[in-house]
Amino acid sequence: MLKNDLFLRALRRESVAHTPLWLMRQAGRYLPEYRATRARAGSFLAMAKNPELACEVTLQPLERFPLDAAILFSDILTVPDAMGLGLYFADGEGPKFERTVRSMADVQKLGVPDMGTELRYVMDAVSVIRRELGGRVPLIGFSGSPWTLACYMVEGGGSDNFARIKSMAYNEPETLHALLRVTTDAVIAYLDAQRLAGAQALQVFDTWGGVLAPHLYREFSLRYLVEIAQRLPRGAAVGSTPGNAAGALGAMGEHAPLILFGKGNAPYLEELAASGAEAVGIDWTVSLGEARRRTGGKVALQGNLDPATLYASPEGIAREAARALDDYAAANGGSRDGHVFNLGHGMSPDMNPEHVAALVRAVHAHRIAGA
Amino acid sequence: MLKNDLFLRALRRESVAHTPLWLMRQAGRYLPEYRATRARAGSFLAMAKNPELACEVTLQPLERFPLDAAILFSDILTVPDAMGLGLYFADGEGPKFERTVRSMADVQKLGVPDMGTELRYVMDAVSVIRRELGGRVPLIGFSGSPWTLACYMVEGGGSDNFARIKSMAYNEPETLHALLRVTTDAVIAYLDAQRLAGAQALQVFDTWGGVLAPHLYREFSLRYLVEIAQRLPRGAAVGSTPGNAAGALGAMGEHAPLILFGKGNAPYLEELAASGAEAVGIDWTVSLGEARRRTGGKVALQGNLDPATLYASPEGIAREAARALDDYAAANGGSRDGHVFNLGHGMSPDMNPEHVAALVRAVHAHRIAGA
Repeated sequence: MLKNDLFLRALRRESVAHTPLWLMRQAGRYLPEYRATRARAGSFLAMAKNPELACEVTLQPLERFPLDAAILFSDILTVPDAMGLGLYFADGEGPKFERTVRSMADVQKLGVPDMGTELRYVMDAVSVIRRELGGRVPLIGFSGSPWTLACYMVEGGGSDNFARIKSMAYNEPETLHALLRVTTDAVIAYLDAQRLAGAQALQVFDTWGGVLAPHLYREFSLRYLVEIAQRLPRGAAVGSTPGNAAGALGAMGEHAPLILFGKGNAPYLEELAASGAEAVGIDWTVSLGEARRRTGGKVALQGNLDPATLYASPEGIAREAARALDDYAAANGGSRDGHVFNLGHGMSPDMNPEHVAALVRAVHAHRIAGA
Repeated sequence: MLKNDLFLRALRRESVAHTPLWLMRQAGRYLPEYRATRARAGSFLAMAKNPELACEVTLQPLERFPLDAAILFSDILTVPDAMGLGLYFADGEGPKFERTVRSMADVQKLGVPDMGTELRYVMDAVSVIRRELGGRVPLIGFSGSPWTLACYMVEGGGSDNFARIKSMAYNEPETLHALLRVTTDAVIAYLDAQRLAGAQALQVFDTWGGVLAPHLYREFSLRYLVEIAQRLPRGAAVGSTPGNAAGALGAMGEHAPLILFGKGNAPYLEELAASGAEAVGIDWTVSLGEARRRTGGKVALQGNLDPATLYASPEGIAREAARALDDYAAANGGSRDGHVFNLGHGMSPDMNPEHVAALVRAVHAHRIAGA
């Protein structure tokens, strides 16, 4: 029994007393207690691969702030790591892979990892966190999108210009599609296993879809997001009977709605709203009002304050949060329903926890203008 | 007398026998002859501040490829440098300023630089290049946009998250507006001086406008782009008599149309088309067809191949160029008029000159589908 189900109610576009919020990368280096746990663990990966430590850092922001959801502490690259690519973090740099995927022969070596063994530590973390949450708020599971995972797998790490994977898109599209197919299968199995382990909502992070030209976004990113939205079991629908389609799909586990988040996905909101996902997460380069108008109430929306707003004064933060909440409601018949407040991207290590507190207070206290 | 005026004709939306093209950062490190000149000069800034060397590298890509325009070789940060901020380049890093602008007191120390002395080297470079071009193709002058210059002035260099200038936007908007006002005056004076020195078209690079949320883009970037479009003299209109408004504005110099380029400006194309600028330059995250439909033929369009397309095979490059050209024409009544082909952003040092040659050939040889 959830003590606070506002987040799930908002994803179902049911009425809520205040707009729920969580923050991408809410468990992170801006919190001194996170840095302490990480120091004890020895490294980021050691922490992410230890279910008890992953649980500890997942819960840390909830001890400080009355956030309306927890999100599994993990890395978006666990799936390619389990596929055998060898994830590591070089000092002061982003994630890297020991082995890259550059040819059809490389792709053919890849398979969907076994969730019960190779990704067992993730499922254990989900179970432990769910237990330790004790129904305070729902737990979100997540995965990188197929395109975003493929970017790291082909480039071997982060990239400024995505030269290698874009070359593959132009010169060997069949190789890239083969890679995206196996990755999509793995993402679906991964999200399904997280749901069965206890995740109550599932988010796909398409961090790098926005670097593509529109025709390539549709071919290499959106197509596989739609496939996930169509194929991913969600579990028994709330209030459903076994005769329902949703009930037939998921024999075990609770209903877990799917959120498709993408940086730079604003040009494609209509298409994402028609994907079959329950919600779309947006960055700050489109207003919530415009996003609501363009998605027509077909999905819940999640977002979208510029994370840099947290560098503003508490008064500035409250003003910007109010603007976003009112903007959504004005396009939604004066109602806050169907909106999960969030940032448009993850938090940064130099952000001030006091400012996060100010944001949470502002969102929870806000009364919709004119309502 | 211009031997090749296709670029200017396209900006005027007059008929052209083939779509003209130039490439952002066409003079650059991907060319061995550029690297040789730079080695002789000793540094990037020494090269940019020497009119003969700036002319040399400006002309280099034209010796290799039948490009339809030349662009002044310079840096977008010459104006803040001339305002006294002390531009320098640390080894292997981007541009930096010795002094930053963080307060109203800092802003109040700034003035519009004297174009005849403090930025004389730029005007001399324009004159020398114009003379050495001998009418082969038109010469483009340029400036950073007020917002983009302010980003560097406030941050003191490049930034991942623009924390300092965004804090200023939220906490001290009047300080930021004061900075943008003096910078706008300086940009207008700078572009006007380039026109009088011989530039035949003028481009404003709003590299960082796209990092802003829509309401902040309109307040801090677009407003000043519109001011430039409204206030910048363009010189005597082609075929105009002294009684014309354009003739009255610019007593000297030729007519030089204004191009507003912005990375991430796709959400604002309607507003940019109504700004008074003759052309809008776009990046690759919007299709040319959509851009043409949304701007309604009010302006010429420039763009917009993803620079990473140059990592594709020559066949792939030709296919992508044809797609872009056809996409524009299909939305433009089957005509190529009003389109200047370009990349959606600058070239990178690791690009292959042979691939640039393939792109230029493909654009020039392309026959519009169905035309």
